[in-house]
Amino acid sequence: MSAALPLRFVIVGGVAAGASAAARARRLSESASITLLERGPDVSFANCGLPYFIGGEIKQRGALAVQTPQTLEALLNLDVRTSVEAVAIDRMLKRVQIRALGSGTTEWLPYDKLLLAPGAVPMRPALPGIDDARIFTLRSLQDMDRIKNAATEAKRVAVIGAGFIGLEMAEQFTRLGKQVTLVELLDQVLPPFDRPMTLFIEDELRRHGIELVLGDGIDGFDGAATLICRLKSARVIEADLVVLSIGVRPETGLARAAGLTVGSRGHINVNESMQTSDTDIYAAGDAVEVADFVMGEHTMVPLGGPANRQGRIVADHIFQPATAKPYAGALGTAIVRVFDVTAGLTGWSEKRLRAGGRPYRTVTVNDNHHAGYFPGAKPIILKLCWEPDTGRVLGAQAAGLAGVDKRLDVLATAIAGSLTIDDLAQLELSYAPPFGAAKDIINLAGFAACNARDGLATPLDTIPDDPDVQVLDVRPPPLVHSHPLPREGSINIPLATLRSRLGELDPSRPVVTVCALGKTAYFASRILAQNGFQTSYLTGGIRAHWDPRSPAKLPTP
Amino acid sequence: MSAALPLRFVIVGGVAAGASAAARARRLSESASITLLERGPDVSFANCGLPYFIGGEIKQRGALAVQTPQTLEALLNLDVRTSVEAVAIDRMLKRVQIRALGSGTTEWLPYDKLLLAPGAVPMRPALPGIDDARIFTLRSLQDMDRIKNAATEAKRVAVIGAGFIGLEMAEQFTRLGKQVTLVELLDQVLPPFDRPMTLFIEDELRRHGIELVLGDGIDGFDGAATLICRLKSARVIEADLVVLSIGVRPETGLARAAGLTVGSRGHINVNESMQTSDTDIYAAGDAVEVADFVMGEHTMVPLGGPANRQGRIVADHIFQPATAKPYAGALGTAIVRVFDVTAGLTGWSEKRLRAGGRPYRTVTVNDNHHAGYFPGAKPIILKLCWEPDTGRVLGAQAAGLAGVDKRLDVLATAIAGSLTIDDLAQLELSYAPPFGAAKDIINLAGFAACNARDGLATPLDTIPDDPDVQVLDVRPPPLVHSHPLPREGSINIPLATLRSRLGELDPSRPVVTVCALGKTAYFASRILAQNGFQTSYLTGGIRAHWDPRSPAKLPTP
Repeated sequence: MSAALPLRFVIVGGVAAGASAAARARRLSESASITLLERGPDVSFANCGLPYFIGGEIKQRGALAVQTPQTLEALLNLDVRTSVEAVAIDRMLKRVQIRALGSGTTEWLPYDKLLLAPGAVPMRPALPGIDDARIFTLRSLQDMDRIKNAATEAKRVAVIGAGFIGLEMAEQFTRLGKQVTLVELLDQVLPPFDRPMTLFIEDELRRHGIELVLGDGIDGFDGAATLICRLKSARVIEADLVVLSIGVRPETGLARAAGLTVGSRGHINVNESMQTSDTDIYAAGDAVEVADFVMGEHTMVPLGGPANRQGRIVADHIFQPATAKPYAGALGTAIVRVFDVTAGLTGWSEKRLRAGGRPYRTVTVNDNHHAGYFPGAKPIILKLCWEPDTGRVLGAQAAGLAGVDKRLDVLATAIAGSLTIDDLAQLELSYAPPFGAAKDIINLAGFAACNARDGLATPLDTIPDDPDVQVLDVRPPPLVHSHPLPREGSINIPLATLRSRLGELDPSRPVVTVCALGKTAYFASRILAQNGFQTSYLTGGIRAHWDPRSPAKLPTP
Repeated sequence: MSAALPLRFVIVGGVAAGASAAARARRLSESASITLLERGPDVSFANCGLPYFIGGEIKQRGALAVQTPQTLEALLNLDVRTSVEAVAIDRMLKRVQIRALGSGTTEWLPYDKLLLAPGAVPMRPALPGIDDARIFTLRSLQDMDRIKNAATEAKRVAVIGAGFIGLEMAEQFTRLGKQVTLVELLDQVLPPFDRPMTLFIEDELRRHGIELVLGDGIDGFDGAATLICRLKSARVIEADLVVLSIGVRPETGLARAAGLTVGSRGHINVNESMQTSDTDIYAAGDAVEVADFVMGEHTMVPLGGPANRQGRIVADHIFQPATAKPYAGALGTAIVRVFDVTAGLTGWSEKRLRAGGRPYRTVTVNDNHHAGYFPGAKPIILKLCWEPDTGRVLGAQAAGLAGVDKRLDVLATAIAGSLTIDDLAQLELSYAPPFGAAKDIINLAGFAACNARDGLATPLDTIPDDPDVQVLDVRPPPLVHSHPLPREGSINIPLATLRSRLGELDPSRPVVTVCALGKTAYFASRILAQNGFQTSYLTGGIRAHWDPRSPAKLPTP
């Protein structure tokens, strides 16, 4: 036991990063004075669960309160102060001024180490009519209660913004029997994804009666008996309740006022130990900029998992610096479930790689989530981005009816280990009929990527418009008829007869092969290439590009 | 197109490794002459699915025939010969002698490259009465048909050997309403596992009425109206049907006769390109010895996934040697589902590390398979083995009601990437309420391992017998009463009151803390350590060591 004065650790923000830092700090030091300040009434609540309580999938509100101020005090011997705002930092005297939201009284708290974990707030642009009481954002338990309350009477709901929270809200409102319109400025849902990887989710939203308005944004609201949402296209949507889910902005007023360095988009700058430009002040969670694991540049990952681990790293760096490890950087792993479909991503998407001018290659593969011969096999689509020179995996996206989380987690781990496409081809994943397959879809993605890298086949993301290109559909004719290619003039030769029908193709013109899943088209492309054709194949097949539910096989008679 | 004579590639064995090699070879070479020889009547069938057809979970027998000789010929232009046995290899003249099992006629087939993928056969020791027609092994579709047929009349079934196939058969027979006895020579099911990690499966077997006979082996059979199984203990089990699932031995008669080098346990030796001691003869699948990924030494992994990838590597090495990659080595990733419980492992177990004299450390953690606040969260137990000097993950085992396959696959990938316990602590896995958690159990395992490595806490696998040790149970008293520790004289102080009740412990004697899951015991151990106690905690808690279904929390009133 040290005879020195106990270290005073003050934490601004008591949810993910803040509460994690406090808990870890107490494990490391029984003697420290740890004060947890939270502006809201709740600490350490399950932010990510809010939509599910609104929709009734989570039935107990209490389940969302992972800890309460009382349990934190009892178990961790913390000084927890809720409904208290940190209003100023005096860096010279190392103290933070706090104001009780109820009484308005202020006081100064001295600190030896300070953590800023203020989080982020939903964006609420200054549009006409934005202050209508029927327009909500979702961040706190109180927001949740307000929306749940308003939803009891509402029949028509507009959700503005089709990111992760927007999709979860659209799903949960539909679950409640509401008529839901989902508006997104981009021409796709899930803006961080490459568009083809969103088609499964889009299809699922429409199948459940959600009206999708893509490529249109909100321009203002007219409040009357019905709330009128005016879109940029001049289109009008009527709603009884609106949820804005168009993103968050970091809460960095306190940090800025204290003169801490912030990044180009307003997030607090931190080093790999989560220290700000003042080494006695740390920051963590949604308000900070961290290093991107894949590329090293600055990025923002406003997600619960990274916030928790960052908070832990702060406590380690303060209380056990000798063994503390730096923050490895963020992958941006994220996932969403929309009814029966799950989609997620980790690392870099193709659009982000392209926008950043990075060299990359991609393949898309389809398979079942477990062995096809075992009952209950469900389709899954996986897209892989890798670095041409090294084969290193840069990012992955997946969508499907089962097993998406597993593949994302494996690929996040692969990125963390700097694995290459050759490594993916050989990964030894668990296989028994109810789980995986002798060749898991991750192996298949590795195979397809290695084939592309080794020049065995050229995956294409689109069928070229060039009329010189011969489009060869190698599916069985009944599938070609029931699910035609959205492209005129393709030639249909099923794979099994291709070797004997090569004469039907013009060897002087390029051939793009197409099938349902991309695999048979690859097989065909190999036959063509070895017979002197210039050939490429549509990676991911029809499923990945137009119709995520198109069949791969003829129905058994 | 080459004007040279087509390369003649002959493959002995048409299931996993053989069929994969043939398919890959054809993608790489349209001109090669590829001959696939199979002793049985079937090629490329779903070996791993056999128990599930017997139990009726897979309903269509045809689903197990992934390919037929006809589809392989049509799609891949192969020369497929079934019911044909390779009887001799003439390495000088590079030809293999084959015999048609029906007619008995023989012929010599010339090869440029030969692949031996003969697989393995179930062990059937020469015990008294072993030839009784009611004693079966399971390897082929024909074995499956025989067992399924015999099962229609059988009421009592004995399964000898509680490895993966034995457990699957025990489950499927129970599903069919049979009275099942499962006999295992070791004192645990799933011999490759550390015993505590098998308790969940054991419990599940018993819950479903399966009689488990552990630590006893079969000594012989007496055939009468009822088949009598005589065990080594002199115990007798009556059965109408017996399945022997005590392991497999490699089919290497052909390779031995040809003078190819075999390993100490009779498996064919291969290099990292799967070449035998004759570089024109490759071997792959259950009959070979490969390098262990973690330790580099020779190992055997008679599993479908590795066999498939090895077959592919053979074709790559023959047909595109410039870009072919070596076999990376085997992890031994394996998984089994038994009713509602799944268990699996990857890399090295503690018992294997101990037997091999390798330095290692371990922790065991418990959590839910996804966020506990979201409905449907199911328990999962995870044990991690790592290398003390480097922190490198050496192996992992998991058991639970959901999400086991995901964690194993992440950990197999972590091992493939040589990740450390620090990397696991920071892995950014997918999290939304229906999937994972802000801190996934894999992160928790990393945290616990780092805590052990950094000297913050000392995980114990057992409670020492030493009467000087104080055993401190930190669970709430009602749980202590409803699920008592199987150890006399423990002290019960719930965590929340521990700081104020330290005086009840003797500071001169060591304290081992215990709770349901291992987490609260760790918390308590941190408080004790900082108050001058010599302390350690039971890793994995009561759940991992005695009672996998013991509650962690008081039931909500």
